[in-house]
Amino acid sequence: MSERETSFWGWGYADKFPSHEARKSFGGQLKAMLGFEPSGPYDPPTLESVRVGESRVTAPVSLPFVTADREARVRHTYGRAFRDIVRGFHGDFEIAPDLVGFPKTEADVVAALDWAADARVAVIPYGGGTSVVGGVEARVPAGYAGTLCLDLRGLDRVLEVERSSLHARIQAGATGPVLEKQLAAHDLTLRCFPQSFEHSTLGGWLVTRAGGHFATVYTHVDDLTASIRAVTPSGVWESRRLPGSGAGPSPDRMLLGSEGTLGIVTEAWMRVRPRPRFRATASVHFGEWSDAVSATRALSQSGLFPTNCRLLDRREAALNFVTGDGSHVLLVGFESADHALVPWMERALELCRDHGGRLPKPPAYAERDEKSGDQGVAGAWKAAFVEAPYLMNVLVSLGVLVDTFETAVPWDRFDALHADVVTSVRAAMQEVAGGGFLSCRFTHVYPDGPAPYFTWIAPAKRGSEVAQWDAIKSAASEALMRNGATITHHHAVGRFHRPWYDCQRPEPFARALRAAKRELDPSAVLNPGVLFDP
Amino acid sequence: MSERETSFWGWGYADKFPSHEARKSFGGQLKAMLGFEPSGPYDPPTLESVRVGESRVTAPVSLPFVTADREARVRHTYGRAFRDIVRGFHGDFEIAPDLVGFPKTEADVVAALDWAADARVAVIPYGGGTSVVGGVEARVPAGYAGTLCLDLRGLDRVLEVERSSLHARIQAGATGPVLEKQLAAHDLTLRCFPQSFEHSTLGGWLVTRAGGHFATVYTHVDDLTASIRAVTPSGVWESRRLPGSGAGPSPDRMLLGSEGTLGIVTEAWMRVRPRPRFRATASVHFGEWSDAVSATRALSQSGLFPTNCRLLDRREAALNFVTGDGSHVLLVGFESADHALVPWMERALELCRDHGGRLPKPPAYAERDEKSGDQGVAGAWKAAFVEAPYLMNVLVSLGVLVDTFETAVPWDRFDALHADVVTSVRAAMQEVAGGGFLSCRFTHVYPDGPAPYFTWIAPAKRGSEVAQWDAIKSAASEALMRNGATITHHHAVGRFHRPWYDCQRPEPFARALRAAKRELDPSAVLNPGVLFDP
Repeated sequence: MSERETSFWGWGYADKFPSHEARKSFGGQLKAMLGFEPSGPYDPPTLESVRVGESRVTAPVSLPFVTADREARVRHTYGRAFRDIVRGFHGDFEIAPDLVGFPKTEADVVAALDWAADARVAVIPYGGGTSVVGGVEARVPAGYAGTLCLDLRGLDRVLEVERSSLHARIQAGATGPVLEKQLAAHDLTLRCFPQSFEHSTLGGWLVTRAGGHFATVYTHVDDLTASIRAVTPSGVWESRRLPGSGAGPSPDRMLLGSEGTLGIVTEAWMRVRPRPRFRATASVHFGEWSDAVSATRALSQSGLFPTNCRLLDRREAALNFVTGDGSHVLLVGFESADHALVPWMERALELCRDHGGRLPKPPAYAERDEKSGDQGVAGAWKAAFVEAPYLMNVLVSLGVLVDTFETAVPWDRFDALHADVVTSVRAAMQEVAGGGFLSCRFTHVYPDGPAPYFTWIAPAKRGSEVAQWDAIKSAASEALMRNGATITHHHAVGRFHRPWYDCQRPEPFARALRAAKRELDPSAVLNPGVLFDP
Repeated sequence: MSERETSFWGWGYADKFPSHEARKSFGGQLKAMLGFEPSGPYDPPTLESVRVGESRVTAPVSLPFVTADREARVRHTYGRAFRDIVRGFHGDFEIAPDLVGFPKTEADVVAALDWAADARVAVIPYGGGTSVVGGVEARVPAGYAGTLCLDLRGLDRVLEVERSSLHARIQAGATGPVLEKQLAAHDLTLRCFPQSFEHSTLGGWLVTRAGGHFATVYTHVDDLTASIRAVTPSGVWESRRLPGSGAGPSPDRMLLGSEGTLGIVTEAWMRVRPRPRFRATASVHFGEWSDAVSATRALSQSGLFPTNCRLLDRREAALNFVTGDGSHVLLVGFESADHALVPWMERALELCRDHGGRLPKPPAYAERDEKSGDQGVAGAWKAAFVEAPYLMNVLVSLGVLVDTFETAVPWDRFDALHADVVTSVRAAMQEVAGGGFLSCRFTHVYPDGPAPYFTWIAPAKRGSEVAQWDAIKSAASEALMRNGATITHHHAVGRFHRPWYDCQRPEPFARALRAAKRELDPSAVLNPGVLFDP
């Protein structure tokens, strides 16, 4: 775990939060971009000033790694959705967990689960605490004596590497930088870079089916997983480390996406790879959105498997300072540890040109020494990408609503989905906030459909932010549902997506999964309220 | 369904079984290749002469598509493992199902399941009847009033095509040729070619996680699946048609590999593709097995994603008439509907040469008119591939034991696994048959390991074939287990792999899956004995 202090109410490191003056100046610039002037800046609470519910449970002496310390409880109350950050900003930590545990070993996890099942205390597995769907929120249904948040970041080591198979056994509590640093010592990398990379953990990625670095083929962390080990209240679950199998339904695929409801993942064998040596990147501009979508579809169906295939609409392109000329921009990238990429990129750009794409600059090709780190365009992109969530802290402090939501849908349904989302979310912003900004990009693409990712920003009414957010979120989610899309492509379900997830999943499957849950967790102590009711 | 008559005891079409004289001549040639002389040929039984158990159940009048007809029962008694064919060859159909149903609609399937649950009759879902693991064998645990085999080939239509998303909604009972013919009318193809392709069905592929055409990336039918619809005794299960999702554990992944124990798949949205236009093929020869394995590993880890990457050891190469010069042969292929493949093949061959590979002939490149069918080398290979199982009929009639088994294992464990399998299977053949032949190929490869496929052939003791087969199968399976491999990569579990599957799967997962089964199938009528005991 890093020693650098993190914000107790907002995203990431505390020292990244700008001064009142800097935020005021930034707020003044927002009108040009978003069309409204924020009411802030307001100042964040101090740790001493926030309201925290009384702990209802005494830390058991048998579990020395468990504490009822006030600050620990505050820091483990919420994830990092807008809904969470705004509550933290207002100093509301009433639903703080009663206890927080910091296990250092799998035996600690087993002991904590045993105790919790006896004491009927709900256990909330916690990695980086970066959930944007209420997955780690200490809010559980009635009937529990209390809540215990288990912070797994003490289990943070790469335990074993099998070089010829490109496998690494990694503990679930390792954050992105912590595990990548250990893999780099072997000249290997997992290359799973969710936007939360700096703070989120391998275990969190696995149980939420995180979206990684690759825009095609190996998009979800699911595909990077060779086996998983988890502690359940009914014993340890460990699958065989395999490159593939057809022996019954996949055990790993039941844990992937289980969001801490079936067991607590303690380690996994992951599929790692040599660090890339060759890179090719290009930005293709389009005047028409429909052309940009067609080009992206053609590329997704070409079998070229680009590493990066991110389409930004003109608003996203402007918001991210990619271009201000009103173009939609498709970022195309290839990378390889094995071969130069000219033929791949040339064919990709030919496809883009066939669909009306223009290249302001020729594609860039880079080859680097195998041991150096991420550099150049890709490095800059990655840096900007992981910085983006910090903007939410600033916007919250300015009195601005902001959120992102994402989905996946077949190509044949995309146009209708996009039109409906634009209409519905704009109408909802108009109704509850008097207007707002909405943009769209694709984060991943498949031969059969894109994973669109939307960002919306609207003026907040101070004190009513959660209700406003709920209304806009609901409008967005309803639009996804009625257009045959998924409620989430890689943000998970948690507590916030439950109503729509419940209607999306097949009812017999819901019953089967609930039966599996009852078998594994008969006391129903594991993350109750997430995925299903206990 | 084809009108051409199929063998009631052996693989495939009846008219493909050679005459006594032809088999006698073939038997005489076997000694040179296998090192032993077969005791046959013997002649197969007639339909009239076989022994069939009495039907214990009367076909219900409410289900007009269900019959107790003797021939229908005989034809639905077994799959097509050696163990099945040899029992059929000996005229042993004592365990024939009591009833056979031929539903034409999903409503028929629902009605059959409802009746069976009430009557406590076990239901065995049946597609092409090509299981090699006892998956459709009418042998169920005690406690059932009888067995009903549901032959789903009446549900054989492509119902819908979404061209822009490359999606097709296909009924589960469509065999490979039947569904490909309907897709060809749209210039599309599923390109899932298990060796059983001519006879097996989409539903069978889905519930057994069949291995398809592609040696890399999209290897299992799992990856070609956008959504599944199944009838369970607790209602209809249908997932949303999506290119990707992160909303909880995947519902489809619970049905994939469920082998008819959780529900009966009636249709699925599959990911289809334009028919390939460009092809590149090459055969690389190696003097040393270890070099051939290293080259294959390098290719699997290159990110080139060859369509074909099949390594044949020198015995496989000779057995399949690929070469008789003692070389191990790596068959490398690329195909694309989008782009010419020269740079891909050139880099692949460079990797092979770096590991000691030789090219007797330069690689072949072909481009064809988009509308023509499979031709040339690929067509010939495919034809030979689907012909191979017919050899089992002939060998059984000659008094020869034969089987294939397959697995997957990380690269770091492959050498030990291979050595152990060779030693153990040869020792078992020596012990129960006085010797035999063993060869190995890779059918699929992953960056983290190969899927090796073994063929063994040994002299049979007439009347003891099943016991001999069981002993050799057991030796092979034990070797897989103790070397960390999977009991099956794409042949499924069925009834024959149960002992090893039971030890492979994580125990909490087994309990969870059993609980899911109880919830979905409370009367436990669905394929009892497969995957788990009811």
